[in-house]
Amino acid sequence: MKKKPEDQIDRGRFLRGMGLAALGASAAGSLLECGPAGRSGTGAGNESFEWKMVTTWPKNFPGLGTGANRLAERIERASGGRLRVRVYAAGELVPPFECFDTVSNGTAELGHGASYYWKGKAEAAQFFSAVPFGLNATEMSAWLWFGGAQELWDELYAPFNLRAFACGNTGVQMGGWFNREIRSLTDFQGLVIRMPGLGGEVMTRMGATVQSIPGGEIFQALQSGAIDATEWVGPYNDLAFGFYKAARFYYWPGWHEPGTALELIVNKQAFEGLPEDLQEVVQAACKADYAEMTAEFTARNNLALKQLVNQHGVQLRRFPDEVLRKIAQLSEEVVAQIGTQNDLSKRIYESYVAFRAGSMEWARIGEQAFSMARSAGTGQ
Amino acid sequence: MKKKPEDQIDRGRFLRGMGLAALGASAAGSLLECGPAGRSGTGAGNESFEWKMVTTWPKNFPGLGTGANRLAERIERASGGRLRVRVYAAGELVPPFECFDTVSNGTAELGHGASYYWKGKAEAAQFFSAVPFGLNATEMSAWLWFGGAQELWDELYAPFNLRAFACGNTGVQMGGWFNREIRSLTDFQGLVIRMPGLGGEVMTRMGATVQSIPGGEIFQALQSGAIDATEWVGPYNDLAFGFYKAARFYYWPGWHEPGTALELIVNKQAFEGLPEDLQEVVQAACKADYAEMTAEFTARNNLALKQLVNQHGVQLRRFPDEVLRKIAQLSEEVVAQIGTQNDLSKRIYESYVAFRAGSMEWARIGEQAFSMARSAGTGQ
Repeated sequence: MKKKPEDQIDRGRFLRGMGLAALGASAAGSLLECGPAGRSGTGAGNESFEWKMVTTWPKNFPGLGTGANRLAERIERASGGRLRVRVYAAGELVPPFECFDTVSNGTAELGHGASYYWKGKAEAAQFFSAVPFGLNATEMSAWLWFGGAQELWDELYAPFNLRAFACGNTGVQMGGWFNREIRSLTDFQGLVIRMPGLGGEVMTRMGATVQSIPGGEIFQALQSGAIDATEWVGPYNDLAFGFYKAARFYYWPGWHEPGTALELIVNKQAFEGLPEDLQEVVQAACKADYAEMTAEFTARNNLALKQLVNQHGVQLRRFPDEVLRKIAQLSEEVVAQIGTQNDLSKRIYESYVAFRAGSMEWARIGEQAFSMARSAGTGQ
Repeated sequence: MKKKPEDQIDRGRFLRGMGLAALGASAAGSLLECGPAGRSGTGAGNESFEWKMVTTWPKNFPGLGTGANRLAERIERASGGRLRVRVYAAGELVPPFECFDTVSNGTAELGHGASYYWKGKAEAAQFFSAVPFGLNATEMSAWLWFGGAQELWDELYAPFNLRAFACGNTGVQMGGWFNREIRSLTDFQGLVIRMPGLGGEVMTRMGATVQSIPGGEIFQALQSGAIDATEWVGPYNDLAFGFYKAARFYYWPGWHEPGTALELIVNKQAFEGLPEDLQEVVQAACKADYAEMTAEFTARNNLALKQLVNQHGVQLRRFPDEVLRKIAQLSEEVVAQIGTQNDLSKRIYESYVAFRAGSMEWARIGEQAFSMARSAGTGQ
């Protein structure tokens, strides 16, 4: 993934939750008297809030932008309209990569994105979205909520005046679109590939030439031969983008983003200014969307994959074993470097690798073993 | 799983959510004036409810009973105490297998359990918890929320005056504890095993003698040799139960319960009597707990597995290939039979197998492929 959404200017509109209809006329009326700091009303139980959510996604970007919309709507409905959230696509209020600062300084109360976008602020932030050969979607939530990672994330973001909650996951992504086949390690020599972040660093070490190209220009670059390959997300998003028209080979597995977590960042003072029930509504809505977005990608990838193969003749290819082994080795080196920067990044890295080791032991006899037995046993 | 919790009589206590503290004194006071049908207060926004949640779990049963408690607490906190939920362990208000009728007739508003317990009411209910060689935790949520299954489930439960929401998942379970090794198909001849439900039916067809034994008596039966084997849940629950003291071999994978979904059943009139914001709170809390319970089992199974192997010398064993193939074939037959009972069960079965086929195609190049590449690439 790591798509850098272009600025798409479009007028935002208020997301009007069903809950508003349930409010009496006087309560609904009080929503209009929005005081300073997005707050109105008097007594604790009747106070209402009107918040801004900036996002790193183009408007209604499938799965991710629509996930931000769904999260905002859920918060509104569950709060009975007491916490209204206006969603801004990338560029509507601020450019996508200013979301972090915008929420940090309180210009917007909420931001929806992925933590690896903020590696310039704190490189270890990448562990809370995805790193190559890291945790899958379920393991990531296990690490966050039952493996001590939420506390480390809170510590990392505290200097920036931010709270962060995981609010979605793409599940495993795909290895990318290639206009020629990868048969051995040497095929990466001189390969021109668009792949941002740590995956791109691994590709550089493999001998490829890594280019940074905004999302809106990738298709053209791939079709013209300016690049030989690109990563994007998975079947659902990639079908919508039409990459099958520009490259024949679709490679798996998505080693560089095995389960990318999305985040809701919240301005700390704004969050603490909410009554406890609305604090819980925000957190419950984030966890609900963690489950729902993961489910959505699973269902839609499954359908899109059929279309890509059956209707568009896409050739699925697995990276050869020697390539995966080499990429895995380089990934371990690249990821380990993030863990050497300071005491906190070291603690995050150590927590992560320990949790991953345990997760892999359990997956070996659990999810992975079942999945393989199901394939073999049902002949599918 | 399919543990039949014994009746454990214990005084229930009110779960007091943090949210209550946030209410003004007068609002908190109004909670005490609980009128008929668990409802009090006057205006729509201030109305409060005091509901009962009966469960099929022994008090504080790890992961499942504690999951019911967490769900109740989340609903209370997110509703600011307007919807208070008193949790009853199995046997406290009604025996576990009367939960369905108790919520159906409105004696309790909520029930926490698993849909396969209600196969006597509607055999196809089993598809909404787990069937052998079926969907994993993520795929199950994908089928429910994006594959049309929620609508089928609603249709199945409508005659019983019930709504149902998925509110947790155990993830993949384990194949069970055996006091002797399974080396071939013939080792099932005469094997005495405790395994309820569809898995038990498969075992019968394998030539085993299947016994039904309540949870509290399994350990003794296994230790005395009255049974040779038993299934339970996974490392986390099984460690707590001490099965490693009674059997040496712990088999994988858990083919019979690959991702067991838990359900919250809600009395239809009670649900419709809630204001829309509280309806959303209940649904968001269920989805949040779907994610959180799955994460909890993943994290705790991972830790418990280490203890079982390193401290208690448990021998992990994989079912041989020929055994898994035969079990898979028999499972397909047993599951297909549920889909022949009437029009609705046929539609549920067909939806399920179609969704599973697509999920397996995607898993083959997605989650399963990544998991295998990670194991091979990192040498763990």
